[in-house]
Amino acid sequence: MPKPLGKPDRVVVALGGNALGDTPEEQIERIRESAPSLLGLIELGNEIIITHGNGPQVGMIQKAFSIASKEDEKVPAMDLPECGAMSQGYIGYHLQQGIGAEMHKTHKHWHVATVVTQIEVDADDPSFQNPSKPIGAFMTKEEAEAAKAKDPSMQFVEDSGRGYRRVVASPVPKKIVEASSILNLLDNEFIVIACGGGGIPVVRDEDDHETYHGIPAVIDKDMAGELLAEDCDAEVLFLLTAVEHVAINFGKPNQEELDDITADEAERLADEGQFGKGSMEPKVRAAIKFVRSRPNRVCIIGSLDKAPETMSGESGTRIHN
Amino acid sequence: MPKPLGKPDRVVVALGGNALGDTPEEQIERIRESAPSLLGLIELGNEIIITHGNGPQVGMIQKAFSIASKEDEKVPAMDLPECGAMSQGYIGYHLQQGIGAEMHKTHKHWHVATVVTQIEVDADDPSFQNPSKPIGAFMTKEEAEAAKAKDPSMQFVEDSGRGYRRVVASPVPKKIVEASSILNLLDNEFIVIACGGGGIPVVRDEDDHETYHGIPAVIDKDMAGELLAEDCDAEVLFLLTAVEHVAINFGKPNQEELDDITADEAERLADEGQFGKGSMEPKVRAAIKFVRSRPNRVCIIGSLDKAPETMSGESGTRIHN
Repeated sequence: MPKPLGKPDRVVVALGGNALGDTPEEQIERIRESAPSLLGLIELGNEIIITHGNGPQVGMIQKAFSIASKEDEKVPAMDLPECGAMSQGYIGYHLQQGIGAEMHKTHKHWHVATVVTQIEVDADDPSFQNPSKPIGAFMTKEEAEAAKAKDPSMQFVEDSGRGYRRVVASPVPKKIVEASSILNLLDNEFIVIACGGGGIPVVRDEDDHETYHGIPAVIDKDMAGELLAEDCDAEVLFLLTAVEHVAINFGKPNQEELDDITADEAERLADEGQFGKGSMEPKVRAAIKFVRSRPNRVCIIGSLDKAPETMSGESGTRIHN
Repeated sequence: MPKPLGKPDRVVVALGGNALGDTPEEQIERIRESAPSLLGLIELGNEIIITHGNGPQVGMIQKAFSIASKEDEKVPAMDLPECGAMSQGYIGYHLQQGIGAEMHKTHKHWHVATVVTQIEVDADDPSFQNPSKPIGAFMTKEEAEAAKAKDPSMQFVEDSGRGYRRVVASPVPKKIVEASSILNLLDNEFIVIACGGGGIPVVRDEDDHETYHGIPAVIDKDMAGELLAEDCDAEVLFLLTAVEHVAINFGKPNQEELDDITADEAERLADEGQFGKGSMEPKVRAAIKFVRSRPNRVCIIGSLDKAPETMSGESGTRIHN
C-alpha cells in the first residue's frame, strides 16, 4: 500500500519483554527473526520509535545480583532502578545490532540509537501506598522477613501458596526526562530505542527539585510507550504482543476477535473486565488514553510476527475515536 | 580566562572507572561530587563529550552472573560484550542523573544523553593472538581448566601466585558504530555520554559484512576516547585520572612532574618505559595519537578534582605538537 506523499507517519512500537527470550543467545536470535518485520514498517513509509518491556531481563539481572551478593561480600546489592538501567543497555545493544544489520541489508540509510531513559513519576502516586507489582524470585517467609528487616521500605506478599515475593508500585509515568534526546534523534532519521522496561522510574528530590532519584517501582511499558508516542507527536501507537487480535470472551466458546473498535467501546469492555488484568487490559487502557489525546490517532494491537500486515490493516485490532 | 568569541572548543573528557566507586551508592556520590568540576568546563566555554572506564563495574556485573549462574540454572552465563552493555546503562544512568541535577542548578540549558555504543575492531587484530588483559575474579587451576573445557575459546593465565585469571584481547578501536548518533546530539547542545568502558567491542561477520557480533575483548578506554575525539572533531582530549600530572622517574627521589611536553618528547619517554604499563602509558600513547591526528590539537592529562583548573592551565600535563 503506497503512502501518500508528505510527512511520514510516526509510529511508536512497543515490544514485549517476553518476546526477547531468556538468555543473550535467545535475545540475539529473536531480534534477528523480528527485525525484518519491524523494518517492514519503514517500507510502508513510517518513522519508527521502539520501546520494549524488560520483565524477564530485569528479573534475571536482579536475581544474579541477589544471589551473588549473598555469596560474595564484594558484590553489592543492586536495586530496581540500577537493574533497569542495565537492562536498557543489554537489550538496546542487541536491538541496535540486530536492527542495524537488517537495515544495512535492505540499503536503508537510517541509523539506530538507544537512549538510556529515566521517566519521572509522582512521589505521591497512589500506587506507592499499595504496591502490587510482584518482582524477583519467590522466597520463603523467613527470607522475606529477613529482607524486610534489612530494608524496612520493602514490601512482600504471599503469592497463592507459591511463596513470598517482593511487590513494588506501578506508578503512572509523568514525564520522559530524556524526551529532547529522543526527539532530536528522531528528527534526523534515526530509529530510536527508548523508555526500555517502561523507563527507569525517578522522583524529584523533595528539597532540591532539579535533582532526580531512582525509586524502586515498575512503570507499565505500554503506558510508558503511550507517553513516548504523545511526546514524539506520533500518529500511531503499535502495541505488539503474542496474539494477533484483542478478543472478548477470551478462552470461551463464544470468543470473538476484534478488528476495529472505538475508544468508548474499548473502555466499556475493559470496565466489564473482558481483558486480562496484567496482560491485555493495560494495553487497552494505554490505547484509549492515546487515541483520546488528540484527533486522528490510532492504536493498533497485534502480533510481532505480522507487524507489516497489522500496520496495513490485514491483521490486528485497531482502536480509534 | 574568557573564551574568544566564536565556535566553542569541543572537549572529550575521559573518566576512569575507578573514580566511580564500587557500589551504586558510591557511584551516585562520586558523580555528585565531580559534576561541578565537569560542568566547570562548560563555564569555560567548551562543549563536552564524556566517556568513562568501566573496569570495576563490568567486573562486578560479570562476577554477579558468574556466581549466580553456578547457583541457579535459570541465570544464564553472561559474556563480556553483554556485561559491557549493562555497565554502559548503569553508569550512564547515574552520570546523566548527577550531571543533569548540577546542570539545572546552574541554569544551563543543555541536555544530557547516554548513547549505548559499539566499537568495531578488526577480527585480525594481533592482540587476539596474544590476549593479555586480565578480567574477572581469580580462580584455582581446576576452576580455570573447567571453564576452558566448557568454552575452549577462553584463555587463562597464572597471575603472580595469586591464582588464575581469564585474559582477553585489547584490540585497537577502528570505528565507532554509533558515531552519527553522538554527532547528532552534540550538534544540538547535548552533553553526550558515549563509548563507556571503551565501547562494546564488535567485529564484522565474515560472510555478511553488514552484521556485527560482540566479541569478548576490552578496548582501552583512553584509545576509545581518542577515536571519539577524532570523530567529534574535538580540539581537546582530556584524560582524567587520580594524579594531577604525568611524571617521570615516578616514585623515585628525582621524580619530576611534567607541565607541558611535545608529542615527540612524550613518545621518547614512553619508549624509555617511563610510564606505568597499564595506567599512564596508554594515556600518553592516546595523547600522542590525538595530537598528531590534526594540527592544533592538545591532550591534557590531569585530575578529576581539578578539571577546570587543569583546563585553564593551572594544573595537569599538556601534550601538544
